[in-house]
Amino acid sequence: MSKKLTKIAVLTSGGDSPGMNAAIRAVVRNAAYCDLKCDGVYRGYQGLIENEFIELGPRDVKNTINRGGTFLKSARSKGFMTKEGRQKAYDNLMARDVDALVVIGGDGTFTGASIFSKEFDIPIIGIPGTIDNDINGTDYTIGYDTALNTVVEAIDKIRDTASSHDRLFLVEVMGRDAGDIALNSGIGAGAEEILIPEENMGIERLLESLDKSRKTGKTSSIIVVSEGDQIGKNITEVANSIQTRLPDYEVKVTVLGHIQRGGSPSCSDRVLASRLGVGAVDALLEGYSNIMVGIEHKKIVYVPFDTAINIKKVLDKDLIRVADIVSS
Amino acid sequence: MSKKLTKIAVLTSGGDSPGMNAAIRAVVRNAAYCDLKCDGVYRGYQGLIENEFIELGPRDVKNTINRGGTFLKSARSKGFMTKEGRQKAYDNLMARDVDALVVIGGDGTFTGASIFSKEFDIPIIGIPGTIDNDINGTDYTIGYDTALNTVVEAIDKIRDTASSHDRLFLVEVMGRDAGDIALNSGIGAGAEEILIPEENMGIERLLESLDKSRKTGKTSSIIVVSEGDQIGKNITEVANSIQTRLPDYEVKVTVLGHIQRGGSPSCSDRVLASRLGVGAVDALLEGYSNIMVGIEHKKIVYVPFDTAINIKKVLDKDLIRVADIVSS
Amino acid sequence: MSKKLTKIAVLTSGGDSPGMNAAIRAVVRNAAYCDLKCDGVYRGYQGLIENEFIELGPRDVKNTINRGGTFLKSARSKGFMTKEGRQKAYDNLMARDVDALVVIGGDGTFTGASIFSKEFDIPIIGIPGTIDNDINGTDYTIGYDTALNTVVEAIDKIRDTASSHDRLFLVEVMGRDAGDIALNSGIGAGAEEILIPEENMGIERLLESLDKSRKTGKTSSIIVVSEGDQIGKNITEVANSIQTRLPDYEVKVTVLGHIQRGGSPSCSDRVLASRLGVGAVDALLEGYSNIMVGIEHKKIVYVPFDTAINIKKVLDKDLIRVADIVSS
Amino acid sequence: MSKKLTKIAVLTSGGDSPGMNAAIRAVVRNAAYCDLKCDGVYRGYQGLIENEFIELGPRDVKNTINRGGTFLKSARSKGFMTKEGRQKAYDNLMARDVDALVVIGGDGTFTGASIFSKEFDIPIIGIPGTIDNDINGTDYTIGYDTALNTVVEAIDKIRDTASSHDRLFLVEVMGRDAGDIALNSGIGAGAEEILIPEENMGIERLLESLDKSRKTGKTSSIIVVSEGDQIGKNITEVANSIQTRLPDYEVKVTVLGHIQRGGSPSCSDRVLASRLGVGAVDALLEGYSNIMVGIEHKKIVYVPFDTAINIKKVLDKDLIRVADIVSS
Repeated sequence: MSKKLTKIAVLTSGGDSPGMNAAIRAVVRNAAYCDLKCDGVYRGYQGLIENEFIELGPRDVKNTINRGGTFLKSARSKGFMTKEGRQKAYDNLMARDVDALVVIGGDGTFTGASIFSKEFDIPIIGIPGTIDNDINGTDYTIGYDTALNTVVEAIDKIRDTASSHDRLFLVEVMGRDAGDIALNSGIGAGAEEILIPEENMGIERLLESLDKSRKTGKTSSIIVVSEGDQIGKNITEVANSIQTRLPDYEVKVTVLGHIQRGGSPSCSDRVLASRLGVGAVDALLEGYSNIMVGIEHKKIVYVPFDTAINIKKVLDKDLIRVADIVSS
Repeated sequence: MSKKLTKIAVLTSGGDSPGMNAAIRAVVRNAAYCDLKCDGVYRGYQGLIENEFIELGPRDVKNTINRGGTFLKSARSKGFMTKEGRQKAYDNLMARDVDALVVIGGDGTFTGASIFSKEFDIPIIGIPGTIDNDINGTDYTIGYDTALNTVVEAIDKIRDTASSHDRLFLVEVMGRDAGDIALNSGIGAGAEEILIPEENMGIERLLESLDKSRKTGKTSSIIVVSEGDQIGKNITEVANSIQTRLPDYEVKVTVLGHIQRGGSPSCSDRVLASRLGVGAVDALLEGYSNIMVGIEHKKIVYVPFDTAINIKKVLDKDLIRVADIVSS
Repeated sequence: MSKKLTKIAVLTSGGDSPGMNAAIRAVVRNAAYCDLKCDGVYRGYQGLIENEFIELGPRDVKNTINRGGTFLKSARSKGFMTKEGRQKAYDNLMARDVDALVVIGGDGTFTGASIFSKEFDIPIIGIPGTIDNDINGTDYTIGYDTALNTVVEAIDKIRDTASSHDRLFLVEVMGRDAGDIALNSGIGAGAEEILIPEENMGIERLLESLDKSRKTGKTSSIIVVSEGDQIGKNITEVANSIQTRLPDYEVKVTVLGHIQRGGSPSCSDRVLASRLGVGAVDALLEGYSNIMVGIEHKKIVYVPFDTAINIKKVLDKDLIRVADIVSS
Repeated sequence: MSKKLTKIAVLTSGGDSPGMNAAIRAVVRNAAYCDLKCDGVYRGYQGLIENEFIELGPRDVKNTINRGGTFLKSARSKGFMTKEGRQKAYDNLMARDVDALVVIGGDGTFTGASIFSKEFDIPIIGIPGTIDNDINGTDYTIGYDTALNTVVEAIDKIRDTASSHDRLFLVEVMGRDAGDIALNSGIGAGAEEILIPEENMGIERLLESLDKSRKTGKTSSIIVVSEGDQIGKNITEVANSIQTRLPDYEVKVTVLGHIQRGGSPSCSDRVLASRLGVGAVDALLEGYSNIMVGIEHKKIVYVPFDTAINIKKVLDKDLIRVADIVSS
């Protein structure tokens, strides 16, 4: 980076996740701490194109660390997928003398950043913000821990009813193609079975397992189903299969839905977001670009966008074994 | 009541609700306090028929006041709808020398109690336990306040995402034919519109109102829809109508489902359950039967089952006006 | 009221309580609904004197209903206790063409309002906002229900430790001279003893009761102590008495403190605040002054300030009996 | 280990922490999974001496994963510090044919285990269960994550009042000699200053910093103080110093106390406890003894008791820097 850094901008893009505000706050405060100016951009890449900027100083981000969602808002941007859109975005950044960009989001966000950064030679640092924990190169993404707690608290409530009525509940949780939310919340909630995209146990093995459970005296059950699971076309289909083949069970379906994306962030997510936000500005000042700031074994790491996006994160096999044992 | 009371039994029936355990606890402890023996019956009327009793003393109900669901479990009983089933239930009660019964549940529970009590001349007192608050003659039912908090906390989370993405969320809440949960949680969650069975606003008026909101600058919205609402056949249909007619909105649907029935009871529900549980035993000792113990203006009231069940509770019109004003 | 109402102002005063923001929001929105202008005043009566006003429209209060505290802030004002201070306050109101005032707070707030209203013949309506529930003429004050839930959730956590270690915990809760918080949260938390200012059981009876409990097999205990309780000069003294006389107990003290004043309001407090906020503007438009808007048996009532302040609210004796029975 | 393993016992000792039940559950279920018998021991080492055993099968631990505290209870044991006590404990274990022990607790627990194991040549595996996160050789201890969330939620509530009244709050949190809870919860809660035992900033620097904050426009502040901090003899002394020297501040003190040890465990703590519980039985079957099962970078590690206890864990300096920046 030849040019001296004097002003940066920060935006959030893609699905919102709890802790994004804490990350923005940390970017803004580290910028001020290092005597950089900082702009916020509303509605992600779309705001870059539509020129929706706001100056942000340390006092402008007070009382945001405990809030879910993102006060800079997020949006999908078809315009940013076109050369014209990105040119407009770049022109707007130049008009405001912005030297570098911090983008908070998931793989779609980083893909856009990677293209934009190479196209216009503007430094961009990514911060992984998604509840799905599906980004390679970082132990955790911002919002994931909070989502796990939200799911587990919801299933704790459902279990009250399941136990009171001797019912079988299928609970669908988010996670896209990654089973992290399902596997961890399933263990945390004491689920009897956990269906994840990475391990297709097949409907027959599920039915056998449930049949066996009932015979050994389990009267109620929770099955956590990842939205990306491949057993049935959808969770209703799985429920119907169980109900038909095991009529003794009274089967109910709950789709947790968007409550998983919101809520006040957990302490762990707030600390993670603070570290990554500070780290992103550090990385820019050290001259980095086109990388994601991640966390590995409690240390900040810099991961090229390509590594973060294109390599599929591997699910922890040991955790699947633990899930099998503790649900027995 | 000619016979002296020496032993009572308590059961929970119908859908479970947070605070039922606190009510059981209060029945058991007031029984002990008044030197009555007390049995618990598992799985409601079905347990009466299948002879599933357990002796309960004051120490057996410790650490239950904070637990959702019902540790005595609940079930539907087809058998109790037959004369034979009820005869079996009565024989089991007599075999254990049970003189009177406390039943915790909703209108179905009270209907069964009313028939059983008259048929066999056994004193029965009802305690209103349902999240729906749809029982006449009591200001509140056990579990209703907790359900309101659960719904409002869930919508607070959804609003994070709605605000971050400028979306419109339709959130379906429970309540059967009663709009109490929808109306109160809708006001509490700051919903822009509230659809309840008691007031069919019609799809056209809803669309007009949403159109107007958007034009006056509202970018995100929450609509709370009672499960008993009559605008569309179901919530997906309503969502589709909005999406088709107001394509500017990005419409999402969330069905909160069974999380609403569970969870640790609120303080208010624990106190209410304690009062009603104590009151039920008091009522038996005073010689009452065939009544529900309710609360009106913070005082215990005795309400004949017929009044509780057969008269439809009236929704508070003033609250509808408040909802209109504060969502403006 | 001879003068036509065109503009009102709203302020919060005294200790903050959860739901105050919801009340401000309802005042602002009903004002707009009725075509009145509305100013907010920062920092209570002190802001009146120091001329800290802000115009508030319906969009300015969005996303406030779920927030604890008061965004208008609160403060004590020595100045308002002087004639000069009040004159200054009145002049500022007149300079901004404010015709009437809505004040949200407790008895101190209403006392000030009463003097000010009579002195300058300006219409003032009060809204009861305090966690203590110590205002006469209203069933509930805003924030009380939330505080009860906060206390009960805290004691649920403490009980985990009490049960795990067979300890006796003295937990001090707020409430000033009123035992409402202690009595209700004590029942809700399943406390073994509840010490309230209205009923001085005496240290000897407490020690006897604890001694008896231990002998009947209770191994852990929670005692809820109201801050206004009269048994000892303070909670540490009570703890020491117990420890000295009943050395078998391992006694611990926890003072819950200011967590009781904060937090996102419960649904019940949000609905109450919405109703009272709407009601306050209604009352002004109906020509009332010098009254508090309260709630009685779910209906809005108008209560003269004198009645609200000067008559001590009576504690529900039946609730004390219930507490005795369920803790047995 | 020459002897074949057929029966193990599990106990909890020292201060309780959320997730201990989840760890017991995992030990019991992995034991059953591996065809080992399993006993639970009540009240830690004291129960070993007093012969308080209970057989535990997989169904006996259902519905425990979400409960705070420890259902096996915990206690201090002076007896276990004597040779006679330990001999009695060993005899009781032999009389029940227990071949090996799993102990869940902190450094005191491991110290006792280490002595006992060497003295009688009985295999013992430790699981780190303490909210303080002060055990060397494991990234996290069970209960730490939950305690952080409890502290942050409490301070979020206190901040409502601090902001509403422009006050300065000193909040004391647990952690013994370790600043982990204070540092992480301080960042998470957005505290302006964090006082930890590892870094004595001195009262003068604190006063300067606060003075500067006020001058730059901060009106309210939260200072998180670790119970082991060295600035003052206690938190009241610190508060008095501030009040005297900076009379503009209205200073309040809150000691969070025992709420920090309780509560339903977070998802992260439940998963950690499940992994460590499974890992402890695995370790026994692999022939290990005198080690703690810990977690490092998401993998199970075996750490000699001596390493776990005697080496002081190092606080993350980078986190102190992050705290400085984000509080600016």
